[in-house]
Order: sequence, then C-alpha cells, then structure tokens
Amino acid sequence: MTKKMNAFYAQSGGVTAVINASACGVIETARKHKNKIGKVYAGRNGIIGALTEDLIDTGKESAKAIAALRHTPAGAFGSCRYKLKGLEENRAQYERLIEVFKTHNIGYFFYNGGGDSADTCLKVSRLSVSLGYPIQAIHVPKTVDNDLPITDCCPGFGSVAKYIAISAREASFDVASMAKTSTKVFILEVMGRHAGWIAAAGGLAADKPGDLPIMILFPEVRFDKARFLARVDALVKRYGYCSIVVSEGVRDGEGAFLADQGVRDAFGHAQLGGVAPVVAAVVKDGLKLKYHWAVADYLQRSARHIASKTDVTQAYAVGKAAVELALKGRNAVMPTIVRKSNKPYKWTVGVANLDDIANVEKKLPQDFITDDGYGITPKCRQYLSPLIQGEDYPPFKNGMPQYVTLKNAAVPRKLPDFKL
Amino acid sequence: MTKKMNAFYAQSGGVTAVINASACGVIETARKHKNKIGKVYAGRNGIIGALTEDLIDTGKESAKAIAALRHTPAGAFGSCRYKLKGLEENRAQYERLIEVFKTHNIGYFFYNGGGDSADTCLKVSRLSVSLGYPIQAIHVPKTVDNDLPITDCCPGFGSVAKYIAISAREASFDVASMAKTSTKVFILEVMGRHAGWIAAAGGLAADKPGDLPIMILFPEVRFDKARFLARVDALVKRYGYCSIVVSEGVRDGEGAFLADQGVRDAFGHAQLGGVAPVVAAVVKDGLKLKYHWAVADYLQRSARHIASKTDVTQAYAVGKAAVELALKGRNAVMPTIVRKSNKPYKWTVGVANLDDIANVEKKLPQDFITDDGYGITPKCRQYLSPLIQGEDYPPFKNGMPQYVTLKNAAVPRKLPDFKL
Repeated sequence: MTKKMNAFYAQSGGVTAVINASACGVIETARKHKNKIGKVYAGRNGIIGALTEDLIDTGKESAKAIAALRHTPAGAFGSCRYKLKGLEENRAQYERLIEVFKTHNIGYFFYNGGGDSADTCLKVSRLSVSLGYPIQAIHVPKTVDNDLPITDCCPGFGSVAKYIAISAREASFDVASMAKTSTKVFILEVMGRHAGWIAAAGGLAADKPGDLPIMILFPEVRFDKARFLARVDALVKRYGYCSIVVSEGVRDGEGAFLADQGVRDAFGHAQLGGVAPVVAAVVKDGLKLKYHWAVADYLQRSARHIASKTDVTQAYAVGKAAVELALKGRNAVMPTIVRKSNKPYKWTVGVANLDDIANVEKKLPQDFITDDGYGITPKCRQYLSPLIQGEDYPPFKNGMPQYVTLKNAAVPRKLPDFKL
Repeated sequence: MTKKMNAFYAQSGGVTAVINASACGVIETARKHKNKIGKVYAGRNGIIGALTEDLIDTGKESAKAIAALRHTPAGAFGSCRYKLKGLEENRAQYERLIEVFKTHNIGYFFYNGGGDSADTCLKVSRLSVSLGYPIQAIHVPKTVDNDLPITDCCPGFGSVAKYIAISAREASFDVASMAKTSTKVFILEVMGRHAGWIAAAGGLAADKPGDLPIMILFPEVRFDKARFLARVDALVKRYGYCSIVVSEGVRDGEGAFLADQGVRDAFGHAQLGGVAPVVAAVVKDGLKLKYHWAVADYLQRSARHIASKTDVTQAYAVGKAAVELALKGRNAVMPTIVRKSNKPYKWTVGVANLDDIANVEKKLPQDFITDDGYGITPKCRQYLSPLIQGEDYPPFKNGMPQYVTLKNAAVPRKLPDFKL
C-alpha cells in the first residue's frame, strides 16, 4: 500500500487483563509511523462499531492516556460477543464493513480476539479483494482460554493463570489453618468451558507436586464421583485438608455439564450456574466434611493488579508486531508467540497465516494431565511456569490501581444507518 | 512479673491476610526482650493447642522464617473455631489451660482473635488469679469483620477491603466492556454475615460517587426486590451496566437470609450457600438481563498479594504493642488502633481494657449508608479510604509469592491427655 491509509482496531469477545496492552502496542506503534498510517480508529464495542459506523478517533487521546492502556484491564473501546455469519448467509454485513472502511479511508484492519475473530479477519481480507478495495487484515491474538493454534500461548492467558495459581495457593494456606476444627475442603471454580488450560494453572499453586494437597477437575476428564470422593478423603486424611480447582466445563459420566444439575430454587426457578456448589454438595453428602467454595468468574480475567509481566509484555508485543506486519505489506496473518527455550525462558514474535488459525482449537495435550486425572505433569508445569513470571503492577493512588477511562470521541458518521 | 517467664501465643477464628504479621510482631518483639521473656510457645491450632498441651516452640524457627510471617497469609500455627464455654459450664477447660501454662512456665498469654477470643482472654486472666497462678493475658485484635469496639479498625479488615474495592473496580471495567452485547449486571458476593463493613468497601471501587455504577447490598438494609430491580434497571439504562456488591448476610423482608432460599438440586439436596446466584436469579427473572456472578469467599481474606500496607503495618504494630504492654505489667488489655487524623492519615497504638471489648460488637454506623440504602456516604469513604492505602507486596519467585511454612516443632508434653 503506497497511499497513506487509516487503521481500524477492534476488540472482540471476552476481555482480559491485558487486551488493552495490545491496543497500546497497536496505537503507539502506529503513531510512530505517521508517514504511512494516518488515523487509528477503534470500533466502539468491537466489530459492531464498524458495522454501525460508530468509530472512535484514538487520535484524540493523549500519549499518556494511550500509555495507561498498558496497565488497564478489560476493553477500553468496548468489546462484543457478535459473530459474523458466514459469507453466504450474510454477505451484506461483510460488504457493509468494507463500505465503512472505504468511506473512512481505512486500509488496515487490526482485530484483537480469539478463534472466531481470526475467522472474521480472514473473511474480511478475502472479500475486500473481491470487492476491489483490498484491506490488510491482521489478527491480534487474545484469549484467556489459550486455545489458539500455532502460537505458543495467547496473551490474556498468562495473567489468568497467575491469578488462579496465586489464589489457589493463598486459599490453601487459609484452609490449612482452619482444617483442625472447621473447613477441610476448599473449592475454587475457574473458567475454561472447553479446555482445561486455566484449571491446569491451579497446579502451579504448589511449587512442586505434594507441596500442597491440590486436586484439579479438568473438562477433559469425566467426573467420577466415587473416585473423586476417594481422592478427597485420602488427601484430607493425609494433609488434614485439600483444595480443589474445578473448571466450569467439567462433565459427568454422561457428558452433561456438572454445573447443570437441574437445581431449582423454592419457586421452581432454575438456579443459575456454578459448578463449585455442586462439587461442594458432593463432598458434603459423600464425606460429611466442612467445605467453602469460591467462584472467581470475571475477577480472574480482569485482575490487572496481579497480571503476569510476561503476559503484559507479550500482549504489547503482538500489538506492535501487528502494525509492523501491516507496514511490511502482510495480510491475513497473526503475530504469534514462539518459545525459544524454557530455562531461561526465551521467546520471540513469529507470524502465522490466518488460514491455519481460523476455526482450529488447541486442546490441552493429554500428557499435560497426570494419569490419575487430577494433576498436572512436569511437562505441563514446564509449559505453564514461564507464562506467569514477573509482576507488572499498575500505578496506585490512595490504595487503588489507577486505570484509564478514555474519552472515546466519535468520528462523524458519513453513511446511512445499518441494521444489525 | 519479676521472674523470667515464657509466653504463649495463639491464633483464633477465621484467619486473615495479616494475622501472621501480628504473630511476627509478637515473636520478634519478644526475642528482643530475652531477659524478661523466655520461650515463645504457639498453640498448634489455636487454643486447642493449649488445652491438649500441643505447643510449638517458635524458638526453633530462624529469624528469617519469623520475618517471613509478615508477608504470609493465613495462620502459620493453625487457628481454630473453638469457643470456650462459660466458666460455670466448663471450669475444667480453664483450669486445664492454667495447668498447661504453669507446667510450661508460661506467664504471658497473647491471644490473637476477635470478640470471642477477647472474652476467653479476659476469663483466663481472671481465673488465673483465683487459681493462684496469675497470667498476664493480652488480646491481639484480628478480624476481617472489623467489629471489635474501641479500636478504630481491626487488623485484617483493611486488606479485605482493599481486595474487594480493587476486585469490584476491575470487574466493573470488564462488565462495562461486555455490556453492549453480553453481560450487563455483575454480582460479587463478599463476607460479613452480621455487619456490612466489607460490603461497604465495594463503594471504594469508584473514586467518587457516580464514577462507576456500583450498588451495595448491606446486611443492615432489608432486601426489597421491587426497589432493587428498579435501581438496577435505572443504572443499566444510564450506564449500560451495573455492578452489585452483596454481603452474604443480606436478609429479605421477613428477616431470612437471602442466601437461604430453599434451593434444591435434582435429587432434593439443599443447595449450599451463595447469595450471589440468588441475586442473579432475581435480576434474570425481573429484568431479563444477562448477568455474571462471583463469590470471593476465602480469596478475599487470604489475598496477601494485594494486602493493604496500612493493614500490615497495624497488624505488626498491635503484635509488638501486646508484648510491650505485657512487659509493662499490663493485664486483661488489648492494643487498639487510634486514629489521629484523616488527611494525612495518622494513627497510633492505644490500649483498651478487655472488660470493654469482650462481647461488644461494633456495627456499621447508620450514617455510613446512603439514604437509598445502596451506597456509602462521604463519611464512610473518609473512614475506609485510609485503611486500604499502600501496597506491601510479598517477595515473588518464578511468578509466585513466597510464603513461609514453619517447622512448627512440638514442645515435649509433660501432662496427661485432656479430652476436649
């Protein structure tokens, strides 16, 4: 692309503690190349902002505000859960995107998200060519689920992993203190409906196997009540207590989500979610042990206060690399994290074709789970450990982290309305 | 006391992120006065350790290990939920305590806990005199519930408050990002069954009222479904989303715990605890809004990684002061935190008689809650804000906080067994 074009950046899907660090990387890098990249527009609430021509002019934000994105959790421009349908089903949406891009002289499309957004990114790239307005579409990886292929890890995951590992360690110390006369089993529910990457991080609560009596319930391992109770019983007999890190996606022998046990309140309303209380009930009924349970939910993915420095650095790096790839004329690609060595941990940024990324889900390898199904193997620990390394504390004032809220000034609309 | 005597230290009730900092203050200060205080014995699992003569010789721990208690959450010697009965009902237990103390030449009794343990402490002091073996009993304040009288605040509370304020801020940023197409209401359940001190800390998530759409459900305010739904609806219409911090102790119009809604699973088992899912169901049924909920449970009181520096400093200070009071010959007292000024926050350590502490519960003042019942007043903010100030990060290694596990070597028993 020889003409100076504007860029479009949008955040997609569930947000993370470090997705704004990627935004920071994109915008700061673009600002260093003003000869080639004009404005950086952000989509208000992700791709919906592009479809509805609701663009944010990031040029109105100070350098200080953009720098503060690096330490601000969640999506500063708004994200969305909105999957574009296939080209055949809704060609109008894709054409609208291209129309908006063309109208605002946008030649670069940076889409920050997971597997679905990689797919959208690829489609935009292809369709734009066939519509005679070629867009360079670069995907910026983001997902706490760590399920994108090719890249060694996904920005967003390391910080959740760190939060879960630390929380499980801290709560285990708590239960250990109380176990003599009170709580003997602590249950922590974590995210990861389809894969046990986040649950696996609970294994890092112990520096080495046996340090703390931690059990993990993976979505990859069917829940066997009798075997589970036997293990809890054995741990409590040996250590006096145990901690259980349970993935929201654990399934029973029939393949149904354990969280979905047909729980009803007094009025017959379905009780809403939560596998932790279900596991607690199993422990109580089966072993008559006193339990406590916690559900980390959004706290785990927004805990920027204890983000992994490795994760923050990588999130920024993929944002920066996305712009650099665009400037090199690359299209339909995604920057990746390439692991060079474990000890010391070394990594670099690589590049993958979106063809190889879109619609491929990276599962937790079987050899990351111990044979008994309740722990992580040394291989898994070796993989996970570098990803949580380093702290990257946000600035604090009056005891509270100082996160930025942007002005998010709208770019004047030029097109007619578009119905989603 | 002129003869050199040993000291006994025990942890009582629910543990906190900083109770070990008090232990550190007691032990380090005692070690500086070896001319007057001999050994410091700790009760294994609190007062049960004294009753069963299961004493830990803290002298076997290195200076480094004791120093590490300052940054280690939970109870390093074990705590217990074990309330001694009244003197009339179980005089034998108190006599046993005195017998154990006498046998191990213990002249100082440092009891680190909340209201119940203050009462035990007072009884031990009184009975020891009547049994002809006078013990100096000093209570060291600790409770996340912040409900001890006279002292301006209780060590343990400030760190929970900081955790809840930060978590509510972080999760609010998350929900704000998602609200356009997904979650519009986030619910965070916090501790505090009898008083809303911890829930109130949720109000600090916003730097000033209106910054973030946060609602608090206090145990002091009866839950009114219609009024609640109207407020949620108004906030979501204005801000696009809202966050709700709900105390586990919220009660409905009839005075029943909202968490106790007769929830049953498919097998008719009572579903276990959690007011957050109940509030979520109310939001879903009443407004059809998408929600997420979290239950912080033990995570909130063990989160040493984000402890309040003010809290850690005060926890250490009351431990140190307890020993100094003992050395001054004081008995049946408790060191207190005395607030000298708000801006800048200044405090000092005072002293209170256990007569005035035992069995008195400090409630959240009515003028700390806004008239609508859903927020904190400027007066409350002024009270809370200093307590969360400062960070006091533990040391990290490989991305994980380094908490100490003591050797906890047992002191040889000299007495016959005692049945609890």
